[in-house]
Amino acid sequence: MHRHKKITDSLKNSPLADFKVGVDNVIFSVDTAQNRLMVLLVMRHDEPFLDQWCLPGTLVRHGESLEDAAYRILAEKIKVENLYLEQLYTFGDPGRDPRESPSSFGVRYLSVSYFALVRFADAQLIANGVSGIAWYPVKQVPQLAFDHNEILEYGYRRLRNKLEYSPIAFEVLPEVFTLSDLYQLYATVLGENFSDYSNFRTRLLKLGFLSDTGLKASRGAGRPASLYRFDAEAFAPLKDKPLVFI
Amino acid sequence: MHRHKKITDSLKNSPLADFKVGVDNVIFSVDTAQNRLMVLLVMRHDEPFLDQWCLPGTLVRHGESLEDAAYRILAEKIKVENLYLEQLYTFGDPGRDPRESPSSFGVRYLSVSYFALVRFADAQLIANGVSGIAWYPVKQVPQLAFDHNEILEYGYRRLRNKLEYSPIAFEVLPEVFTLSDLYQLYATVLGENFSDYSNFRTRLLKLGFLSDTGLKASRGAGRPASLYRFDAEAFAPLKDKPLVFI
Repeated sequence: MHRHKKITDSLKNSPLADFKVGVDNVIFSVDTAQNRLMVLLVMRHDEPFLDQWCLPGTLVRHGESLEDAAYRILAEKIKVENLYLEQLYTFGDPGRDPRESPSSFGVRYLSVSYFALVRFADAQLIANGVSGIAWYPVKQVPQLAFDHNEILEYGYRRLRNKLEYSPIAFEVLPEVFTLSDLYQLYATVLGENFSDYSNFRTRLLKLGFLSDTGLKASRGAGRPASLYRFDAEAFAPLKDKPLVFI
Repeated sequence: MHRHKKITDSLKNSPLADFKVGVDNVIFSVDTAQNRLMVLLVMRHDEPFLDQWCLPGTLVRHGESLEDAAYRILAEKIKVENLYLEQLYTFGDPGRDPRESPSSFGVRYLSVSYFALVRFADAQLIANGVSGIAWYPVKQVPQLAFDHNEILEYGYRRLRNKLEYSPIAFEVLPEVFTLSDLYQLYATVLGENFSDYSNFRTRLLKLGFLSDTGLKASRGAGRPASLYRFDAEAFAPLKDKPLVFI
């Protein structure tokens, strides 16, 4: 965890860098029908990286906040009911954008990344102004433009983290769900070995914010499964307490 | 948690903003002798906010990464053995710096903030190039320049979070410590009511990465207390598991 850095004294006297600031969104969704974690990609129709896939992004305009730029690009790409964005990380190494020539004293490009998780069934893609737009399975994402594979990796870490420590799963599940649906969602994001079903079930029920609706779902062979809903009121007192969900 | 944002369509066609990018460090330390959480402030010796306290920061230079700028400013302000910085959050609302005039089509100032926790006894302040430098008790921080009170508040949240979910406390405690030292550190940062001592003690010992050194500390009246050390090897298998420390 400890790190030392040599400080280049010469830098102290070099001129200030000029920046354009971009916002790039890592928008995840879970395709619950096929148990796949998806990420939204768009195809670039400009140089650099013409015709390559990248995260949906934009450059920040006069008078626009970073968050407004993130919501703007999101609203341009998908229609979705509920939508929650949070800032992820800022990438700003020199040379991360080929528009900065290596020897240049010119403009640098900074990317402030944002993270979102949307309900797959609700999200409608908008194809305006891009040559392509697609939900890609995270496991099959191609080489992306710029350092976007790195940004995606960072977002994926944040998503796993949020599943472990926050009730974010209930924002993408339907209103009522079986414990097996919930388990499947966790397994899709965290991998099959994150916990066995019976431990997961016991733990989640013990936390006390899943209410049995009394309804049953019957799917396939087995006996009908109980349908639960997330009880926000029961969760409220836990909200600011440190808590592990798995 | 859900938020909707109106998108101002007019912004889509307004020109790209130009930015200077600053790095501001929230450097915390715990004065264990007096049980106070401290933050490092410097006094500005330039306009704007001449003679006001602020977080130590700098503007990013040609060829310099954000992280290098953060380490550069830190190395200019304190000498410290072990030092760990992580990115905190990026603040970029229009108008956050008075050098952007409100109606201006001019340059905006973005702040990428970094977070550090250093050992109080080890950290030596360096007073070069500032009119003042001081460890301020977090509870007595004055009005700071720019939006630095907001950045500090964000850093304080991150610090509490890290104490709850990570072994960061052991980076600022001495090599060997009593459970009461550890409790006091947590109470100093999280407030007295975060847990009672006996629960805290039981929980931490159960996690299995505190080794009893066999040594005793005798301070004040009571009977001598056992001295523990953090066992990094015992902690290793827990490193990537979701875990709550309190």
